Amino acid sequence: LTAMVNSAVGEILAALRASGDYVSGEALGNELGVSRVSIWKYIRNLKQHGYVIETSSRGYYLVSSPDLLLPWEVTGWEQKVRHYGEVNSTMEVAKELAKKGVEEGTIVVAESQSRGRGRLGREWSSPVGGIYCTVVLRPKVSPAYAPRISLMASVAVARTIRDLFGLPAELKWPNDVLIGGKKVCGILAEMEAETDELKFVNLGIGMNVNCSISQERATSLRDELGRDVSRKMVLGAVLAEIQRQQNVLTTDDLLAEWKKLSVTLGREVRVASLGEEISGKAIDVDSDGALIVACPDGSVKKVFAGDCLHV
Amino acid sequence: LTAMVNSAVGEILAALRASGDYVSGEALGNELGVSRVSIWKYIRNLKQHGYVIETSSRGYYLVSSPDLLLPWEVTGWEQKVRHYGEVNSTMEVAKELAKKGVEEGTIVVAESQSRGRGRLGREWSSPVGGIYCTVVLRPKVSPAYAPRISLMASVAVARTIRDLFGLPAELKWPNDVLIGGKKVCGILAEMEAETDELKFVNLGIGMNVNCSISQERATSLRDELGRDVSRKMVLGAVLAEIQRQQNVLTTDDLLAEWKKLSVTLGREVRVASLGEEISGKAIDVDSDGALIVACPDGSVKKVFAGDCLHV
Repeated sequence: LTAMVNSAVGEILAALRASGDYVSGEALGNELGVSRVSIWKYIRNLKQHGYVIETSSRGYYLVSSPDLLLPWEVTGWEQKVRHYGEVNSTMEVAKELAKKGVEEGTIVVAESQSRGRGRLGREWSSPVGGIYCTVVLRPKVSPAYAPRISLMASVAVARTIRDLFGLPAELKWPNDVLIGGKKVCGILAEMEAETDELKFVNLGIGMNVNCSISQERATSLRDELGRDVSRKMVLGAVLAEIQRQQNVLTTDDLLAEWKKLSVTLGREVRVASLGEEISGKAIDVDSDGALIVACPDGSVKKVFAGDCLHV
Repeated sequence: LTAMVNSAVGEILAALRASGDYVSGEALGNELGVSRVSIWKYIRNLKQHGYVIETSSRGYYLVSSPDLLLPWEVTGWEQKVRHYGEVNSTMEVAKELAKKGVEEGTIVVAESQSRGRGRLGREWSSPVGGIYCTVVLRPKVSPAYAPRISLMASVAVARTIRDLFGLPAELKWPNDVLIGGKKVCGILAEMEAETDELKFVNLGIGMNVNCSISQERATSLRDELGRDVSRKMVLGAVLAEIQRQQNVLTTDDLLAEWKKLSVTLGREVRVASLGEEISGKAIDVDSDGALIVACPDGSVKKVFAGDCLHV
């Protein structure tokens, strides 16, 4: 039901925005194939969410929309988005939903997080203006492909930033998206699996968008562009890119694209991995997402996880 | 507390068995460094679990012990075993415990399972007389190593059967233990992980031991040996072998040992994997546990999961 309501509300908004003028309840009703009373209820719903809509004898006129990632604002994903104001963490909300068997592709979106989570148990600063979402995926692949899902998401985010804004987004192993060496997006994956089957992989994306970052090693799209951008457009594009990348998850194309965008390969790196520290030249990424490091002593090491420092 | 009680009860049993005669409460108390009243309480506890213990002025005499995998019976693992009569599935019990943060190495053992689980959502027949256990592991390795944990367990079980009984246990990819082509043990792993960290891997082991199997493709240790064996000895040995194998989890030694025991390599196989069917000759196992199949058309395919049929 909610999914259908979201679609209908999206259509009403599209009609009001396309018109730029008053649109009668009757015209909207005809377009959606519902009664004028239903339209009135949808309009009331929109007003409750912060939309300013003037009503007169000529119909409805959209004055302004709130800057929120409401389901019907994320075109193409109206039926999948579950929108929250502030949550502790979209990862926690999504985990609960995934365990309850929520549909593949469900997207948990929050305006801010009180306890946003980053990799390696770190906090992810999550002020209003960013994009914080977790996508519940249930890919029919072996758990061995799980690390690729994070790679895939980082490629999707970098591609989106390049395509929409022409910014030179690059990838730092394993899953950071950088612009000019500064982090603009982090990826976190959490999964439950059996020997032969991924039950779910929750893919968390935290993007610095319309917020100003005062850290030396981080940046935001606003900081880079000197203006705010449409968060719903960014989110919709990232989701579409993830959908596209999922089709190449098990092929070499994904790794090829990751390598093309990588700023880690060819660099001297120091990786703190599970209590060990490995220094050397990052020479490749293996099919399972592991980083291949050529060490000064001539040995070649495979690093699966950890913190990578470009030296 | 329970762990300490289990150890003390184990020591009392060992003393009674070593003596083969009456042992006074005072002697037992001195040996354990506790009061005679404590000894009496431990003895009462044992009787409640089905041990027949005669009491006279000369002390306690152990007449018989129940055939149960009680914690104090699994020498070396008294403090880790949690024993249940019948459970739905040791995997379910262990999952609850793992999520509650139970200690690494905790072992859930049940005498029988009402809804024993096998791979690929199948049922695992779990009558009394088998060994049904799930070990909660929290290895400090990347989630990429998770498939190796199942390989590791199958090696541990095959080694144990060979060492204890001289039976020619072999491995069928991915994790079945066979004797003479018939399945004697199945392995199931279930995990929760983040990008960089395995939160837990629950390793389920279902072994046909002192039960008679009427299926064509399965067997039990009793069927092979023509006699019953000591389940506690088998379980203790498997657990010790798993502990030993964990040290080589990330090395090539594990794969080498798996290959040595494998009955799949070199065989013509048909693998049903995620909706696809792959036929060809099994030529190798990759470092991530995947089966490498040489297909008749000359292509070489890597199979991560699925049902393997030896043709």
